[in-house]
Amino acid sequence: MEKQLPFDMVVEAKYAPTTPRRRLNPAGELPVLEEDGGLRICGNYPITEYLEEAYPQRTLLPRSMPERVEVRRLIDWFDKLFNREVTQKLVQEKIYLRQNPDLSPSTHALREGKRNIGRHLEMIASLTQDQPWLTGESMTLADITAAAHISSLDYLGDVPWKDYPQSKDWYALMKSRPAFQWILRERLPGIHPPPYYENPDF
Amino acid sequence: MEKQLPFDMVVEAKYAPTTPRRRLNPAGELPVLEEDGGLRICGNYPITEYLEEAYPQRTLLPRSMPERVEVRRLIDWFDKLFNREVTQKLVQEKIYLRQNPDLSPSTHALREGKRNIGRHLEMIASLTQDQPWLTGESMTLADITAAAHISSLDYLGDVPWKDYPQSKDWYALMKSRPAFQWILRERLPGIHPPPYYENPDF
Repeated sequence: MEKQLPFDMVVEAKYAPTTPRRRLNPAGELPVLEEDGGLRICGNYPITEYLEEAYPQRTLLPRSMPERVEVRRLIDWFDKLFNREVTQKLVQEKIYLRQNPDLSPSTHALREGKRNIGRHLEMIASLTQDQPWLTGESMTLADITAAAHISSLDYLGDVPWKDYPQSKDWYALMKSRPAFQWILRERLPGIHPPPYYENPDF
Repeated sequence: MEKQLPFDMVVEAKYAPTTPRRRLNPAGELPVLEEDGGLRICGNYPITEYLEEAYPQRTLLPRSMPERVEVRRLIDWFDKLFNREVTQKLVQEKIYLRQNPDLSPSTHALREGKRNIGRHLEMIASLTQDQPWLTGESMTLADITAAAHISSLDYLGDVPWKDYPQSKDWYALMKSRPAFQWILRERLPGIHPPPYYENPDF
């Protein structure tokens, strides 16, 4: 979307019977990108690196080595550390377990997720103190990865924005991107986001 | 090592006081690669992509797009799925918890890890049925990533090799690489690997 490439979106339920999805990706994990020629790319990391290499016109990974290292450090930070400490604890518990009525959310995990989010919002604040985006003057895959995690928590009303005004400014900038508006219009059946969720001036 | 680059190794205890490590990597995670010029690269994914870009002479990531996609799919498979289903359950429980006397291993996690390893060894067998390495005729980052996880389980005697002779052949090939011998000579204090651990003909 930010790279201005056309695509079709197919939504998959995380706990739906996995057979059709395993045909797409033997790991049974999402996301999967399928090219018109049939090439299938599985997983966040392979997809983002592939898109950068296959479509270098509008790059989301800077050219200089120290910047590439920093962007990938932050992708790794959000997809591993933030995912483990926050997203899994809150989103996993609140949304995915809803799709599986046999399981019930763990209040311990929810409490931990809410406690952990603070230091990550502080890091975003400190990185964006003197620059608009996490790694500099341009939006990169680091911002997209961070915003992907944060938007799912914001949908649940779990981001304490008032305590982190600097991080809120960064996220407002992200929300104003045309590509991001499309994400903000998506809804999960049966769960309503807070009223400010879609608004770039929140 | 496989890229024939000189380096120094510094061992870090996973549960040692984290302050010096946080100075290296704010995420407090390993591994961290530090270049002579001071550039610091944090995490498996950023390090492997960096080494390929900075030192393209001996490449461990093939040039063609479908092959790059396949190598990265398998890196992601082992670092996420295999890590979650097997490595974390066995290595985490058996080794890291030893370093922290307040915690005791969970027999449930150990049992699950041992049960899960089978399908991954089957996948390695099916990928290497008609080719020596996971993605073709040359060893790549996919083989290195898979072998890194498997060697730590093999150190604990947790790989049921006799049930997976094809996967064993692949791992024997890996063990015979000069770079890998160096890894096989490493020892953890207080834990002894099985007698066949270091032997390429096991």
